[in-house]
Amino acid sequence: VVFAGTHLIIEVENGHGLDDEDRIEQAFRDCVDACGATLLHIHTHKFSPQGVSGVAVLAESHISVHTWPEIGYGAFDVFMCGDADPWKAVGVLKRAFGTETVHVKELRRGEGLVRDTAAA
Amino acid sequence: VVFAGTHLIIEVENGHGLDDEDRIEQAFRDCVDACGATLLHIHTHKFSPQGVSGVAVLAESHISVHTWPEIGYGAFDVFMCGDADPWKAVGVLKRAFGTETVHVKELRRGEGLVRDTAAA
Repeated sequence: VVFAGTHLIIEVENGHGLDDEDRIEQAFRDCVDACGATLLHIHTHKFSPQGVSGVAVLAESHISVHTWPEIGYGAFDVFMCGDADPWKAVGVLKRAFGTETVHVKELRRGEGLVRDTAAA
Repeated sequence: VVFAGTHLIIEVENGHGLDDEDRIEQAFRDCVDACGATLLHIHTHKFSPQGVSGVAVLAESHISVHTWPEIGYGAFDVFMCGDADPWKAVGVLKRAFGTETVHVKELRRGEGLVRDTAAA
């Protein structure tokens, strides 16, 4: 299997505005621009009483999020192949949600994952 | 940060039908049913000359895929919180794409990731 792209698992803590669909959609659009990607489709869903899920399909793969606003936590993914740079999204998310507390795990989809994981 | 759910990173190799949007959408719906999840939104995009991206927003988080049909490879994610069981998706994907060659990496979003990764 080839190297299929870089998939960042991004945990945002102490975040603000994580219950705001418009703010999340704007953050996604800003990530797309910063990373040099191309947006194809975007969708958000607001849960009651709180929480937002969002997905953006890109020419280079996707961005997704699920938020727990009551504890300031957002579970983001930024997966991009080709020349787009998903690491540029980290600073965008810090600014968008007003926090410096962000943890990132980088996965190399394709070759890296297949080498490092057991068959299921 | 709480435990926010189980996120499976699923690498499908030697797969068939990975250029077929309808087959991918049906596989997503079958995963949702098998895992005990609830589908809120589904979207697929067909690339030229080949390749499909797909996302499903669930009440329990999401499923996504990006395929490289020319090498029989699909990069799937199945992220579910609550009582839904994302591991049930693995057998569904094997059957849907006619392969036994599937690698899975399990990430525990929230507590597990924050503990194991450096701040960015």
